[in-house]
Amino acid sequence: MPTAYVLYYWPTIQGRGELVRLALERVGAPYEDAARTPRGMNAMMRLLAGKGPGLAPFAPPILKAGKLVIAQTANILAWLATRHPLVAPGETNRVHAHQLCLTVMDFLAEVHDVHHPVGTGLYYEDQKKEARRCAAGFLAERIPKFIGYFERVLARSGGKHAVAGRFSYVDLALFQVVDGLGYAFPRAWSRSRRKAPRLVALHRAVAAHPRIAAYLASPRRVPFNEDGIFRHYPELDS
Amino acid sequence: MPTAYVLYYWPTIQGRGELVRLALERVGAPYEDAARTPRGMNAMMRLLAGKGPGLAPFAPPILKAGKLVIAQTANILAWLATRHPLVAPGETNRVHAHQLCLTVMDFLAEVHDVHHPVGTGLYYEDQKKEARRCAAGFLAERIPKFIGYFERVLARSGGKHAVAGRFSYVDLALFQVVDGLGYAFPRAWSRSRRKAPRLVALHRAVAAHPRIAAYLASPRRVPFNEDGIFRHYPELDS
Repeated sequence: MPTAYVLYYWPTIQGRGELVRLALERVGAPYEDAARTPRGMNAMMRLLAGKGPGLAPFAPPILKAGKLVIAQTANILAWLATRHPLVAPGETNRVHAHQLCLTVMDFLAEVHDVHHPVGTGLYYEDQKKEARRCAAGFLAERIPKFIGYFERVLARSGGKHAVAGRFSYVDLALFQVVDGLGYAFPRAWSRSRRKAPRLVALHRAVAAHPRIAAYLASPRRVPFNEDGIFRHYPELDS
Repeated sequence: MPTAYVLYYWPTIQGRGELVRLALERVGAPYEDAARTPRGMNAMMRLLAGKGPGLAPFAPPILKAGKLVIAQTANILAWLATRHPLVAPGETNRVHAHQLCLTVMDFLAEVHDVHHPVGTGLYYEDQKKEARRCAAGFLAERIPKFIGYFERVLARSGGKHAVAGRFSYVDLALFQVVDGLGYAFPRAWSRSRRKAPRLVALHRAVAAHPRIAAYLASPRRVPFNEDGIFRHYPELDS
């Protein structure tokens, strides 16, 4: 029986934690999504308050692996990839997978900031006007820039995978990007996706993997909603 | 003679590239700040256009180390730390250094977004009103949250260093954070720094290291200015 991981993440959203959930599910690693269990939120808040051993995390997701407590999504994924078949072997592949993952994280931060341009301390309702202005530039410039980049990365890597023509956790992250854009910006994405056939195919292939398909159909997958990163506000999708 | 690195970064700003410059300078690694040499910008733009070998970077900084082309600041630093004494040995120290570095990167993104809340595609002058609103929350909530966190990290690590009580590249990143806040938000920082004595002392200690002191006094250190991440707009500092 392999060691079970303990994941701490906000229990009601996909958020950044979803990239970790997808990786753990894809390799079939046993894990507990702790904050969704009784008392799990308390345990997470204690870790964030620095009441655990060692370095306190700044924010979730947090992965406990034995005595090691790791935070920062891309850091967790890079570490998991040293233990599980989540990237092709070799230093260059590891470095490039991490590089792409960090670029996905940058994109997710921009997606989040579309509905929170003024500050995370304010509600969306308090920054709707700024959000509309932000969304215009995001749809016109940032989605094409990031999606065009990822599409070219896939093309150069043989078309089906982001790194070295083989499966990696970056494929999972790109699945989440495509899934989220389709949820949050269905109108804009219905146009943008035409220029991203490889990403669209990758999204379909990832979703069809038996373990991912089972996960997506399970209650373990938190549905998209308007508390997460990808929020469907029709007024921002035009 | 060790291999010379080639760094590609915007030639007129410190920006994210400064964390790489500081690391290379601190270990005395030979490097060329390529975009500040004749034809260097052309070479950087070719890399960004995907005309180099292998994975194209999404954005600078980019480090060429032999045949390896690495992008994403935190990725570059983690890789450099496998080659140079930039972090104490051991998996936990490496993972935690990277975790802290990524948290610094998150903070730098927020610092940047204070003057560009609506979009990077617009000038500051086109989003001044939103920037003032954003700055209010940034000064009142985000600086205390991040600086308080880093101060506690230092306290738990023995007071003088961020990771394992020993020098690491995270110390350099925190130096840059303190240096930048002092430049961009002198009024707000003159209050916040009172609650961050360890960060202030770390900033002084890093600046006093012979190789860093020589670097800071040299023309290789680009001065702060209003094109970088840390910009001094008095109207945002109140």
